[in-house]
Amino acid sequence: MTLVTCDMSMSLDGYVTGPNDSRENPFGDGADTLHDWLFDAATDEDRALLQGGLEGTGAVVMGRVSFDKCVEMWGENGPTNGVPCYVVTHEAPTESHPSVYTFVTDGVASAIKQAKDTAGTKSVGLHGASVMQQGLPLGLVDELFVHVVPLLLGGGTPLFGSLDSAVTLERVDAVITPAATHLRFRVVK
Amino acid sequence: MTLVTCDMSMSLDGYVTGPNDSRENPFGDGADTLHDWLFDAATDEDRALLQGGLEGTGAVVMGRVSFDKCVEMWGENGPTNGVPCYVVTHEAPTESHPSVYTFVTDGVASAIKQAKDTAGTKSVGLHGASVMQQGLPLGLVDELFVHVVPLLLGGGTPLFGSLDSAVTLERVDAVITPAATHLRFRVVK
Repeated sequence: MTLVTCDMSMSLDGYVTGPNDSRENPFGDGADTLHDWLFDAATDEDRALLQGGLEGTGAVVMGRVSFDKCVEMWGENGPTNGVPCYVVTHEAPTESHPSVYTFVTDGVASAIKQAKDTAGTKSVGLHGASVMQQGLPLGLVDELFVHVVPLLLGGGTPLFGSLDSAVTLERVDAVITPAATHLRFRVVK
Repeated sequence: MTLVTCDMSMSLDGYVTGPNDSRENPFGDGADTLHDWLFDAATDEDRALLQGGLEGTGAVVMGRVSFDKCVEMWGENGPTNGVPCYVVTHEAPTESHPSVYTFVTDGVASAIKQAKDTAGTKSVGLHGASVMQQGLPLGLVDELFVHVVPLLLGGGTPLFGSLDSAVTLERVDAVITPAATHLRFRVVK
């Protein structure tokens, strides 16, 4: 079974970017330390989690906002070492773009299906809050891997959106490193 | 120094109650498991954390909404074994109430000051999202002790509010139990 995982760094108050994020300011205001566990503050345990995530990911699904904001920063190989990325959008861009990206105009469920077919025995990674929020109520998200960072952003892009009813999770892993609390959850119902 | 601590159970998506919380439904819809670490699912570690919190608290500050919603449930001794509770309100109630409560009509800073004077060497506990959200930008909150519960509520009362700028935290303790991830943070700036 191909797992669909949303793997994101989140401030304690629930944001994946700070306010005013843009192509020039991709992490948003005040969010400089949100990804420290990946960079300056990374310990061997942090690096092992990152490496495991990268090696285990066979395809990525992202929203158009993430693509537009980060495509330049990520370069030719996209966010995940050349793994195919499916971008959910209303309309494919006309300008050229790295070949790692495929544009999907018939919705998140279609993008996740295509990504699962591509990923095979590896996982599908959902990049960005929007695709996770769309996929979760459809029952298309299997795991949430949240890296809780000791920071309050007070605004920006929230990881989670409103739901019609509560969703029960099962915490299946917890790793404590200085820069983050890495919590992996299985979506139960 | 008297520490001011906000000690709350929170769903992974940041809520301290589910939607439609009221006197009859104090935890809100879908939030039945939000306090399981205190009750049915409590381990010795959970109980030790609770007991430590209770024994270390010398006074409580809460908002009027928490008071109105929970006063009956808590009974004569209030939420914390008879510890004095300062209730921030615009107008003190005219009906009788347990003597553990004092009503403060000149704002959260005044309530926290009175609570610190009462607490002495013990801590002041902030009960409820509202008083924490008011006290944090005033520099009056020293610690956040958040019990992250494996649950998405998708609505209800958010623990954190918007902020004018990011707040850096330092994680000073992390305890993993089956029903919650207990994370204690010092407010740095």
